[in-house]
Amino acid sequence: MKLEQRYEGKAKRVYATPNPQEYVVEYKDDATAFNGVKKAQIMGKGEINNAITAHLFPLLERAGIPTHFLEKLSDREQRVRAVQIIPVEVIVRNVAAGSFSRRLGIEEGTPLARPVVEYCYKSDALGDPLINSDTAISLGWATEEDLARIRELSLKVRDFLVPYFAARGVRLIDFKLEFGKTHDGQIVLADEISPDTCRFWDAATGEKLDKDRFRRDLGGVEDAYAEMLRRVTSEV
Amino acid sequence: MKLEQRYEGKAKRVYATPNPQEYVVEYKDDATAFNGVKKAQIMGKGEINNAITAHLFPLLERAGIPTHFLEKLSDREQRVRAVQIIPVEVIVRNVAAGSFSRRLGIEEGTPLARPVVEYCYKSDALGDPLINSDTAISLGWATEEDLARIRELSLKVRDFLVPYFAARGVRLIDFKLEFGKTHDGQIVLADEISPDTCRFWDAATGEKLDKDRFRRDLGGVEDAYAEMLRRVTSEV
Repeated sequence: MKLEQRYEGKAKRVYATPNPQEYVVEYKDDATAFNGVKKAQIMGKGEINNAITAHLFPLLERAGIPTHFLEKLSDREQRVRAVQIIPVEVIVRNVAAGSFSRRLGIEEGTPLARPVVEYCYKSDALGDPLINSDTAISLGWATEEDLARIRELSLKVRDFLVPYFAARGVRLIDFKLEFGKTHDGQIVLADEISPDTCRFWDAATGEKLDKDRFRRDLGGVEDAYAEMLRRVTSEV
Repeated sequence: MKLEQRYEGKAKRVYATPNPQEYVVEYKDDATAFNGVKKAQIMGKGEINNAITAHLFPLLERAGIPTHFLEKLSDREQRVRAVQIIPVEVIVRNVAAGSFSRRLGIEEGTPLARPVVEYCYKSDALGDPLINSDTAISLGWATEEDLARIRELSLKVRDFLVPYFAARGVRLIDFKLEFGKTHDGQIVLADEISPDTCRFWDAATGEKLDKDRFRRDLGGVEDAYAEMLRRVTSEV
């Protein structure tokens, strides 16, 4: 049962419920890129991202990563633990791509000698600027202990997802995570894991199976999302 | 005795000497800002920055921070240890200002709850982009041990300079450091410490006594540099 809307982001809405320790998340078809400059709808995206996240989060829980996920309620809805989102987005990079490639002049597709964990300040108004842990701590966005835990969990997510996707013919290039704090102070993985928040390249062909098809006008956006749902949920 | 030029930067030239473990550094009057877009000469800047650096580096050595500095040779020249510069610039921030304020929407002059150490990749072509330690390690610009030592030394420089300048009526807002490796692998402070590389605000009036006078067309650039030389070398 959804009560008042608590938050509307670019791709999801979050609602209060009669239980103060639970929210309902609703996935939208809305897609934005370049900090909201490019906007469109990707037909079926909400359902697909809900399904992919609802498939992966319980697997991550079983791998020892606490998450906000409780259950899938409908095609577009999930029941989740109520958390306060920590305003530090985490990007984990296995291979140079996107803003990392542009900023540092590293050709897209260059494997990184070891994973790179980047932090951005979650602020649409500022365009989610790159920060580091000193900045997050100094400005009160997270404590040193929070960030140590967030880094540990982010690398654990990577260690689970890389072989999971590899077994399904997908290279996990990079991905964005968000974390939240529950009422009792536990840090849990929140938000989603989907073609909106990851770069997925087909292992055989290099074809992009993620939001870059939308960002870069490559066409076949809906097909790529559907293909990723098929791969994520396939038994291997 | 200077042999061939080994490097020319925006504000200095570096020459080989007959001793392969020593260089001569020559300070120029050239000033650039906004990644070289704005260019001019600041009369007397080379002499002043040479004098300020030649005054501070021996004090830092005595405070336990190894530096490349050996001796002042002339108005514009220093003899230094030959080092290979680590391509990771360090910015230490005590108070929000400049790019940090713009990027994060924090009003200039806001004190930081604790010092922020930022790393940038030293690349004129890329505009010295912000990086973090994972990126520097992953791309081979420095090792984890190098960065731990660089951070330790940078905070030690801060701990020496903040009270040093405070005693001379100057708030040290932020500063940029560069480090190099000697032939035997020792990490030493290199480059310079001057109004080109620090933000200095008069403690009583808030007046800027640094390169921001040039960047922001505030006038009185030469006077500010001369005033900082006077303060740095004054006995208190």
